[in-house]
Amino acid sequence: MPVIKRVAIVGVGLMGASFGLALKRAWSTVRIIGVDVDESVLEQARARGAIDANGTYAQAGAADVILLALPVRQMSTAFAALAPHLSDLSTLVDVGSTKQSVIAAARAALGDRIAQFVPCHPIAGRERHGPMFAEVGLFEAKSVVITPLPENSPERLARVEGLWTAVGSRLVPMLPDQHDAVFAAVSHLPHMLAFSLVEELASRPNAKSLFEHAASGFRDFTRIASSSPEMWRDIALDNRAAILEELDAYLAKTANLRQLLADADAEALLSFMQRAQGAREHWLSGQLDQFNDLEK
Amino acid sequence: MPVIKRVAIVGVGLMGASFGLALKRAWSTVRIIGVDVDESVLEQARARGAIDANGTYAQAGAADVILLALPVRQMSTAFAALAPHLSDLSTLVDVGSTKQSVIAAARAALGDRIAQFVPCHPIAGRERHGPMFAEVGLFEAKSVVITPLPENSPERLARVEGLWTAVGSRLVPMLPDQHDAVFAAVSHLPHMLAFSLVEELASRPNAKSLFEHAASGFRDFTRIASSSPEMWRDIALDNRAAILEELDAYLAKTANLRQLLADADAEALLSFMQRAQGAREHWLSGQLDQFNDLEK
Repeated sequence: MPVIKRVAIVGVGLMGASFGLALKRAWSTVRIIGVDVDESVLEQARARGAIDANGTYAQAGAADVILLALPVRQMSTAFAALAPHLSDLSTLVDVGSTKQSVIAAARAALGDRIAQFVPCHPIAGRERHGPMFAEVGLFEAKSVVITPLPENSPERLARVEGLWTAVGSRLVPMLPDQHDAVFAAVSHLPHMLAFSLVEELASRPNAKSLFEHAASGFRDFTRIASSSPEMWRDIALDNRAAILEELDAYLAKTANLRQLLADADAEALLSFMQRAQGAREHWLSGQLDQFNDLEK
Repeated sequence: MPVIKRVAIVGVGLMGASFGLALKRAWSTVRIIGVDVDESVLEQARARGAIDANGTYAQAGAADVILLALPVRQMSTAFAALAPHLSDLSTLVDVGSTKQSVIAAARAALGDRIAQFVPCHPIAGRERHGPMFAEVGLFEAKSVVITPLPENSPERLARVEGLWTAVGSRLVPMLPDQHDAVFAAVSHLPHMLAFSLVEELASRPNAKSLFEHAASGFRDFTRIASSSPEMWRDIALDNRAAILEELDAYLAKTANLRQLLADADAEALLSFMQRAQGAREHWLSGQLDQFNDLEK
């Protein structure tokens, strides 16, 4: 495979533009084109120095590496638009928060060229969206989950690893279904819960009084409710079965907590809160061996 | 009333010790004694310079101002221990997160001296507890909700206002039941929800895998689940009726969101998330006039 000289970024929002900035810092001679349906977003990404020029899908198809940084439900369209233009030497990488659905979309659109696609999910991001919030260090010291396809050659995987290493990330391999189940629990569920709390309070007749008194606990709890609604609608739909399971488990657990409170069971309430607080402290201090892991 | 020269802080954890640090910075000649059941906590508070000396309830009762900074269910015991020693000139202030229950405890223990108690709730704090986490600036630019009693004289309220102003806070008057309802929604509910999420994931057979992949969204969403379990058990029990109402409303709203997802209703999901995201942006930018407030 050729040295990576030409990169295309499809979708130059927060993730795509941050990747452009980081890659240009690492490899100063790389040339990056941006593809986006929104001209103003392309203009901002160019102004920020995240891309060198606007491009077309046809030009993107000839790049050494094509990064897809789109809401997951827009991946199909992008794969289909790229497919006829894809050079034999191009490698496709995505940054989607769901993996099974993106892989299915890639298989449907790319056919025999599926080996050229390496599914990835960088565990990086912010609740802000758009290239104006791009950060050159967004991927530094972050994990990138990679869910390799059976068709991916070792050379292609090595190339993708080099790409993420260049922007400061380390790869964590997972199976696609394992990825989707784990992130349904630790990411997609909390997003749903945060959207739900803000929507609930905003819909009250005394919403103004409530928000006047909301402070730092509320701010951090709901930070992820400032995330892009379009992106999260897509994630919710694409990982629907796993998220429904998570919502059911969470609703049952919270109904259980509600019952302890209704019973004024001081001892059980304390124990519940102590288990939660203790678990979070173990997590923060990296003491993961304190947790069960029967699946491993 | 005398100039404030002698202050007693009952409970020298994060809040009490931070108050001591802040007050000594503002009024360098004030003498502060600390009362706490835990000798090691008193020692830490003294080492931090938050208090000048350990004291007894009898000594505390003679102070110009006595600040109660205890978990709300320990307030009764403290009021009862102070009552026989309370000087006519002393003013009692608390920092409890619930107001109706603390006022009831004060009335029961103080009897005719109830006019000496001014109920307060500083909207400040951290998820950490203990005097080692005390911060001299904890109360700076923060609101302190004050729920005056009919018995409080204007002079006493002015004294309490001076105290909070000295540590950099501004007073926000509310009725006790209004306070408890508002904070059930914007503070107590999110704490319950955060405890519930961490407990749910920690109890799974694959907890270790889950926590290995939890990132910044999870960290912020669950920050408040690192709060003191004893403190939050007390708040939950003392504001039980309001929190049960909040939990019911939240569970119903989240069941509604779950149904939109089960129906794969893309348009309704997007609209739900847009309302939440938009409301949070209005809140962050201080545009509270965007919200209804039929109660005002």
